[in-house]
Amino acid sequence: MRSVRIIGIDPGLRRTGWGVVDADRGGLRFVACGSVVSDETESLGARLRQIFDGLTRVLAELAPLEAAIEQTFVNRDAAATLKLGQARGIALLVPALSGLAIAEYAPTAVKKTVVGNGHGDKTQIRAMVRCLLPRATFDSADAADALAIAITHAHSRSWRRFEAALSHEGAA
Amino acid sequence: MRSVRIIGIDPGLRRTGWGVVDADRGGLRFVACGSVVSDETESLGARLRQIFDGLTRVLAELAPLEAAIEQTFVNRDAAATLKLGQARGIALLVPALSGLAIAEYAPTAVKKTVVGNGHGDKTQIRAMVRCLLPRATFDSADAADALAIAITHAHSRSWRRFEAALSHEGAA
Repeated sequence: MRSVRIIGIDPGLRRTGWGVVDADRGGLRFVACGSVVSDETESLGARLRQIFDGLTRVLAELAPLEAAIEQTFVNRDAAATLKLGQARGIALLVPALSGLAIAEYAPTAVKKTVVGNGHGDKTQIRAMVRCLLPRATFDSADAADALAIAITHAHSRSWRRFEAALSHEGAA
Repeated sequence: MRSVRIIGIDPGLRRTGWGVVDADRGGLRFVACGSVVSDETESLGARLRQIFDGLTRVLAELAPLEAAIEQTFVNRDAAATLKLGQARGIALLVPALSGLAIAEYAPTAVKKTVVGNGHGDKTQIRAMVRCLLPRATFDSADAADALAIAITHAHSRSWRRFEAALSHEGAA
């Protein structure tokens, strides 16, 4: 199995986290992470452009092959949901413009993969990200969450490969 | 007063309407309108890219100087609000990438400008758009709504100029 580079993205209008890992048969390797912060004193259009420019630079520099993003939790108020939706639109657009496949994971799936159950809190998620990627240093909670999403995608895709291999053996 | 070209945008994930007018002292002139339709069988990222590519082409071809977009009505369900937010993020990004100023108008402001009161229904809005821009032909309700937003911006900006001129006269 060749190594595949994955970017996880945790979108937000104020701060969009991103985290990149390389996944191969040997496991996961931390590449980089960070966050794109938009300037709250700017207009909405200018802020969305800042997110677009920031993520575009990250993709150009690190050249991930696959992208993963959290399925947004929509039980907040409508104004917050709309704001998040606008940022999330940009977070989906940037990898789509580079032709990357984009996987979406529910927050419970991320918790289940990283913490082991669907009810882990944010602190547990960060502790497990540190454990799974000991070389990772993150500047923000959003960057850690983005790494958790990238880890979830890496596990999910290797599990799918494992199942595909099993069913192939069964057929042989 | 020089002529200014305005694009109005009515964002939606399935269909994003756009309408372009030229505004000057003599009034309004219809330029073009249409809608960008995304393919529902595609992934969310691919659909947002279709909206991005379509609006980018419109801006490149028609070169508007200012943009206007409706302030989204957020009393729908959260899933619909999130979808709309994602499309709206793209609709704001595209003019922002071209350095255009983007004005936002509440739906009641659009109705008040075009119909004369804040409670006009969609049919009234379309009838008035036809009346104000007799040369306009629109292929969809979304294109007509986008023209209504462009008209609202044209009126709002000429009203602001008129007020500025009055206060200048008062000061002289």
